[in-house]
Amino acid sequence: MSKNLPDKKTILDQLNWRYATKKFDPEKKVSDEDWEILEQALILAPSSFGLQPFKFLVVTDPEMKEKLRPAAWGQAQITDSSHLVVVTARKDMAENHVAEFIDRIVEVRGTPREMLADYENMIEGFRKKAVAGGWIGPWSQRQAYIALGFLLETAALLGIDACPMEGFEPDQFDQILGLKDYTATALCAIGYRDADGDWLEPLPKVRFSKEKLIERI
Amino acid sequence: MSKNLPDKKTILDQLNWRYATKKFDPEKKVSDEDWEILEQALILAPSSFGLQPFKFLVVTDPEMKEKLRPAAWGQAQITDSSHLVVVTARKDMAENHVAEFIDRIVEVRGTPREMLADYENMIEGFRKKAVAGGWIGPWSQRQAYIALGFLLETAALLGIDACPMEGFEPDQFDQILGLKDYTATALCAIGYRDADGDWLEPLPKVRFSKEKLIERI
Repeated sequence: MSKNLPDKKTILDQLNWRYATKKFDPEKKVSDEDWEILEQALILAPSSFGLQPFKFLVVTDPEMKEKLRPAAWGQAQITDSSHLVVVTARKDMAENHVAEFIDRIVEVRGTPREMLADYENMIEGFRKKAVAGGWIGPWSQRQAYIALGFLLETAALLGIDACPMEGFEPDQFDQILGLKDYTATALCAIGYRDADGDWLEPLPKVRFSKEKLIERI
Repeated sequence: MSKNLPDKKTILDQLNWRYATKKFDPEKKVSDEDWEILEQALILAPSSFGLQPFKFLVVTDPEMKEKLRPAAWGQAQITDSSHLVVVTARKDMAENHVAEFIDRIVEVRGTPREMLADYENMIEGFRKKAVAGGWIGPWSQRQAYIALGFLLETAALLGIDACPMEGFEPDQFDQILGLKDYTATALCAIGYRDADGDWLEPLPKVRFSKEKLIERI
């Protein structure tokens, strides 16, 4: 554990400071150093079994952003933000995804592959059940949303603005980006707010009361 | 923004430090002060439209934990952890959820209700489409997983251990906990690791390579 844990109040201050930024300052770009941290947050986010059934497309190319914007209902965050993250999740799951995951355990931990046979069979059983039940897509999307949470919280802690977005046409995004095995499931525009140009910025955050959201048992 | 943002390296150190804790120290409890921060992270997590189609049940009662454990494949994290969070999401969405949300905007921001009529109609249009399409459940679960991400990252930043779990029987959890409109969609056991008793603790984290997970465009 780090000896230098963040101040507790700071964590809450930053979670309150963040908001779904509607107007980005198109001149301000996220530094490479900060971007690397945000990518690491996406990579380090946990997923069920560790299967990471997702990919993240990071769009900074202005032409591609222009091409994507109409498929996101014309929203300006697509083009004004510094980086646009397209969060994608597996539509289905081929057997080789599990095999690649087991290969990766062997690579990272040096575990002999034969020692992982039971574990591989267990995950393979899960995969078959999920594919047969038709719920591998929604399951993969849920895993991707944990990573989206990590991206949003980490950005807030770095003082970087973000706007998570579901208002777009996944089919059109998939086509424009050439996605086949994965489908666009959420967007996250990242950059710096243009506070003066954003009607939402000064408004207090709306959340249901603790009494409504949390029950102690 | 806080003047005292956390050290960038600390954020990554803590995201690397966290892991899906298999063995908790049953003697160590999360303090009320820290628990309040974790609950705030759940409350402050963003959701589509801000609708927060979820609830969090926080189980600390030993008898209830014993009752739930068999429905979570007997896993010891249920009973050994300090707090068990049952992340639940709406199965369906009644019209009154949207009305309550609009009421809450009026309450928090003081906006006259009639000024929110167009906005309410827009969200109500979304709700009807989602209910008719049968995807309000998976959509609600995705929103809940953003909050799960906030819970996991915030715990890591506080030096608190957690184990996100999908290995349980939602129907049995719903029945035991008396859930009707919401369904258990993930668990998160929270507490402190018993490092000596946990086979997973010393093993390096397995993640796919950046090249596999992230594509720059």
